[in-house]
Amino acid sequence: MRTIRVGLVGLGTVGSGVVEILKRYGEKFRTRAGVALELAKCADRDPARAEALALAPGVFTTDVAEIIGDPSIDVIIELVGGTGVARTIVLDALAAGKSVVTANKALMATHGEEVMHAAEAAGVDVLFEASVGGGIPIIGPLKHSLVSNEIQAVYGIVNGTTNYMLTRMAEDGLDYETALAEAQVRGFAEADPTADVDGLDAAAKIAILASIAFNSRVTFADVPAEGIRSIAPTDIAYAHETGYTIKLMAIGKRTPEGLDIRVQPTMIRADHPLAKVNGVYNAIYVVGDAVGETMFFGEGAGSLPAASAVVGDVIEAARHIQGDCRGLVGCTCTEHLPLRDIADLTTSHYLRLHVRDEPGVLAAIAGIFGEHGVSLASVIQKHAEDGGAEIVWITHRAAERDVRAALAAIEALEVVDAVGSVLRVEEL
Amino acid sequence: MRTIRVGLVGLGTVGSGVVEILKRYGEKFRTRAGVALELAKCADRDPARAEALALAPGVFTTDVAEIIGDPSIDVIIELVGGTGVARTIVLDALAAGKSVVTANKALMATHGEEVMHAAEAAGVDVLFEASVGGGIPIIGPLKHSLVSNEIQAVYGIVNGTTNYMLTRMAEDGLDYETALAEAQVRGFAEADPTADVDGLDAAAKIAILASIAFNSRVTFADVPAEGIRSIAPTDIAYAHETGYTIKLMAIGKRTPEGLDIRVQPTMIRADHPLAKVNGVYNAIYVVGDAVGETMFFGEGAGSLPAASAVVGDVIEAARHIQGDCRGLVGCTCTEHLPLRDIADLTTSHYLRLHVRDEPGVLAAIAGIFGEHGVSLASVIQKHAEDGGAEIVWITHRAAERDVRAALAAIEALEVVDAVGSVLRVEEL
Repeated sequence: MRTIRVGLVGLGTVGSGVVEILKRYGEKFRTRAGVALELAKCADRDPARAEALALAPGVFTTDVAEIIGDPSIDVIIELVGGTGVARTIVLDALAAGKSVVTANKALMATHGEEVMHAAEAAGVDVLFEASVGGGIPIIGPLKHSLVSNEIQAVYGIVNGTTNYMLTRMAEDGLDYETALAEAQVRGFAEADPTADVDGLDAAAKIAILASIAFNSRVTFADVPAEGIRSIAPTDIAYAHETGYTIKLMAIGKRTPEGLDIRVQPTMIRADHPLAKVNGVYNAIYVVGDAVGETMFFGEGAGSLPAASAVVGDVIEAARHIQGDCRGLVGCTCTEHLPLRDIADLTTSHYLRLHVRDEPGVLAAIAGIFGEHGVSLASVIQKHAEDGGAEIVWITHRAAERDVRAALAAIEALEVVDAVGSVLRVEEL
Repeated sequence: MRTIRVGLVGLGTVGSGVVEILKRYGEKFRTRAGVALELAKCADRDPARAEALALAPGVFTTDVAEIIGDPSIDVIIELVGGTGVARTIVLDALAAGKSVVTANKALMATHGEEVMHAAEAAGVDVLFEASVGGGIPIIGPLKHSLVSNEIQAVYGIVNGTTNYMLTRMAEDGLDYETALAEAQVRGFAEADPTADVDGLDAAAKIAILASIAFNSRVTFADVPAEGIRSIAPTDIAYAHETGYTIKLMAIGKRTPEGLDIRVQPTMIRADHPLAKVNGVYNAIYVVGDAVGETMFFGEGAGSLPAASAVVGDVIEAARHIQGDCRGLVGCTCTEHLPLRDIADLTTSHYLRLHVRDEPGVLAAIAGIFGEHGVSLASVIQKHAEDGGAEIVWITHRAAERDVRAALAAIEALEVVDAVGSVLRVEEL
């Protein structure tokens, strides 16, 4: 059995998990998986990280070029992240004829086409299971067992930070700021939480999932994203009362008019399996025309879960090298489906408005909805703590464009203080 | 692109789904999956089935040998079922150098080793994703992405019939007989429901899952199975009151003393994700040392869901033929772990006894538990409808062997009419 030599770039959270798994089971993989792996080289800018991991002598380097330029290295693991130096590392490694394993969602969501084509040109593998859903196997199932389906929809809870915050808000009544502060203290949210709370992390992940599920390239820039900053305890309470749960959903749907891809805080039925996915757990719900409804659930982040997917990919790449069949399943974006303009979408909307507590306000707002063709399903008016009033409207299915136009006109009313939350109700 | 010629044996429920999917997407698989598939031959004993499917002229035969003996056929799909003629078909096909796809749980759970070794000897693939969990991708993830883990446990709700019945009993108060009759009317249960309600179907499936998860061969005959015949509405009500749900669980656990593999009606916490898996849905909960807790959910039966997995495997086999790498991942049972005797297991037990409503009965029974070292956590006595009494006992963790010995002695008491239900409480 030929030993497959592995080079690892990036010894951060996931990288240290990869080192740990290879230490634990490197020998066992010979029998269990039929591959002999050797962690030949590790690169990081910080030698202290290497020391903490007690790497074998001669394995560590601060020079990435030493790994990419080493002809004896078969597989490179890129765990640097981002779209800058990581892109160069991945493209250089592929050009050097090495298979690449990466957990880099930003890279795959932004430069996925370039990376996949570079791998194809070099006749090697690029595998990225860890880029979505941490350790949850989802890219493998979509590219293999579920390839027999026309996928109708993919619904993901793919950001653990916001799911943790929404769970704490729903179960323990925390407000947004307190939930965020707690997530930061517990290490689930960064000091700058923008990528998580504004839905950008989820947008990159649904771009990757949609590209595979629908056989048509979707990039990060294609995905309209809304986050959870505007979600207040009153929204959560209202959802609960009406049998719904609020989740930050990454949505991809095949429609006759094109692909509907977006990230939005969404009200889903409380008895749907996705509504029970709490805390830092992730889940991806896949609907196929043959398989029906499926769900893949697990830990979406963390050192060992993500490293589980990375090492799974390394073993796959190693099997392909041993079997002389690298590049067995390459880019599957063989169609060019149009993307729907989010303004064309029709859904039921939940709208919370903060208004002055005066006679005629409700009628004035209702009139504007009517003028824009937005039909209302229900309305609840409550006194707000500051002496004003809060009105929650649920619309029947209405076009996003009409709802937005109505809201713009409503916001211009002197008696309206602010639009609090805008949530879509998804009947999945 | 070389066309891969496929022979299908068995045009029943799953077989007709396979024909349907290949008709729908055969052409699209060329671009989407990079394989050209041709359904070259179909065999069944019943020509009427072929007529109903409107197969192309010359495709149908009643003679299986015509398919196995055709050197132009690359992949054979075996959907006959059982361990008799199906075994011969699979072994003959492998010996003829054809890759095999099967949905046959009985065959793989009973003759898995023989089949895997025959495939290895012939240098071809044998793929069987559809044998467990219908369309849910679970064997693929265990053999690929999760291979980086030491799997600690596999918990499956893998029989849709019994899960449908238990759901109807829990949600609508049906008794066992009514739930079974309804499942039969709706086509979810066979006229002879033995394989489902006695846990034999689930036993075959956990044998397959455990073999892969623990890299150690487990056969159908190794798996002690108990079914759901003794579950009464009173058990379900009691479970509900105490925050539990009763599910027919297929359990595989790695323990220091060996593998613990069994099928039992089990009380699990009502807030566990598996407790929310209702109706004919299946789910497999996999715990790995790196990935943590994961769950795979979907439709466990039905024509198109199972056909989804079968065609996924056919595409995989075709890719391997095109890439000249058949047999890439063969048998992974590389260890020989001992199986634990179920009598050695220690769990908390739920025991419902039907007794005469006389003074001293409770004390007499409690005394026998004590003599056998079975410590009691709680006891509830209620009047039964027939004038007797029902006593429900929950034990602390106790060895199965001690509980059984105590129950034998208790059953021998003149004042005890019958042991109603024995359930294990699983804290997963």
